[in-house]
Amino acid sequence: VQNIGAVVFDAYGTLFDVHSVIVRCEAEWPGQGRSLSQLWRTKQLEYSWLRALMDRYEPFHVVTAEALAYACQALGLPLSDETRAALMEQYQHLTVYPEAPSALAALGPGRRLAIFSNGSPAMLEPLVANAGLTELLTSGWLSADEVRLYKPTPGAYALVPSRLEVPAKRTLFVSSNPWDVAGAKNFGFLVAWVNRTGAVFDQLGLTPDLVVTDLSQIPEHIGQGPLTS
Amino acid sequence: VQNIGAVVFDAYGTLFDVHSVIVRCEAEWPGQGRSLSQLWRTKQLEYSWLRALMDRYEPFHVVTAEALAYACQALGLPLSDETRAALMEQYQHLTVYPEAPSALAALGPGRRLAIFSNGSPAMLEPLVANAGLTELLTSGWLSADEVRLYKPTPGAYALVPSRLEVPAKRTLFVSSNPWDVAGAKNFGFLVAWVNRTGAVFDQLGLTPDLVVTDLSQIPEHIGQGPLTS
Repeated sequence: VQNIGAVVFDAYGTLFDVHSVIVRCEAEWPGQGRSLSQLWRTKQLEYSWLRALMDRYEPFHVVTAEALAYACQALGLPLSDETRAALMEQYQHLTVYPEAPSALAALGPGRRLAIFSNGSPAMLEPLVANAGLTELLTSGWLSADEVRLYKPTPGAYALVPSRLEVPAKRTLFVSSNPWDVAGAKNFGFLVAWVNRTGAVFDQLGLTPDLVVTDLSQIPEHIGQGPLTS
Repeated sequence: VQNIGAVVFDAYGTLFDVHSVIVRCEAEWPGQGRSLSQLWRTKQLEYSWLRALMDRYEPFHVVTAEALAYACQALGLPLSDETRAALMEQYQHLTVYPEAPSALAALGPGRRLAIFSNGSPAMLEPLVANAGLTELLTSGWLSADEVRLYKPTPGAYALVPSRLEVPAKRTLFVSSNPWDVAGAKNFGFLVAWVNRTGAVFDQLGLTPDLVVTDLSQIPEHIGQGPLTS
């Protein structure tokens, strides 16, 4: 089990700070940036889950735009087409967490490194390129859009071993989102939870194999004995 | 379409006030009752959706207890077995909204009236009995537990026409939860949204046929021309 052939990363919240949109939100609506960013993110996740449950898949950029529209309406913030476009554009320029590039560089030799995200190709391609991660992600990015299912559906995660050609039990899936960690564990990956904020893990009957406070701690845990208990 | 043969109600938030647990929470942890109740409810819904997506069904009383455990842990509130049992017991004594009994009485003649809830039978049976709604709900209660699927999965709602023997298009589904209204509409019911708080409806590409501010307005809208636009 310690023979990890692939390390696969969630994008939003794990490699990239979704709340880096606060600056742009704050410029538009002073004093409301943090509230808007949080509600936007909450609804983005909720809508992806609800659409998956209702069997009404729409790509993540649609879900993200709908979540933004809801959040602005709920907070009483008028949203022009121009501002909507500017905020959606922010999703192509999210801040990469500072330790991510060196962690990827340390993990890379002899392993497949990839992103697996709910994000649609139109979101992921510019995001990875703008962050300068294209070379470091040796196996690039995989979008759940390819199977039109969202995480944490097992059928979504199944895309990863099928495309990377590494078995799930030899793949370490890394996410800062507890529901994603749980979903990946439920599918059969080894899983690491990046808990940057001292959060409490969700009660879903599943626990991470590894807990770290940032991505820099991942390399030291790989290849030194069994990861699972 | 105006020939409504059945009116089916969501339980939590629609006929019963889930936040009536605040009093008991407040007695246990002064000043934290509202925060705890809100986080408990948020996680209860989230866990039901995530378990449905992960294909890891557990009955709603299990999900509710797990959500309570998370909420207490996240807020730093110690939860004894005794307090857990007392709070879970509160779910059998939720306050019924004051207009509910007379609305049910007005809707009853010639129509099937029922609850359809994610709640497990062990939760719904005492709740309905304690609230004195047994006689008014002419077709009783239906639990998603029977099909081991949660709302808003179409397969969960399918239980209703199959058990009530009224077609979905002649059934009015009533809920205060936007995601539930959307799910019921997606399945094929006529739907009414009870918006007690002036909330914004979710952006899921589905809209309610009828919006009311409480249950007392439902009877006047039935049987007077087409409900759908």
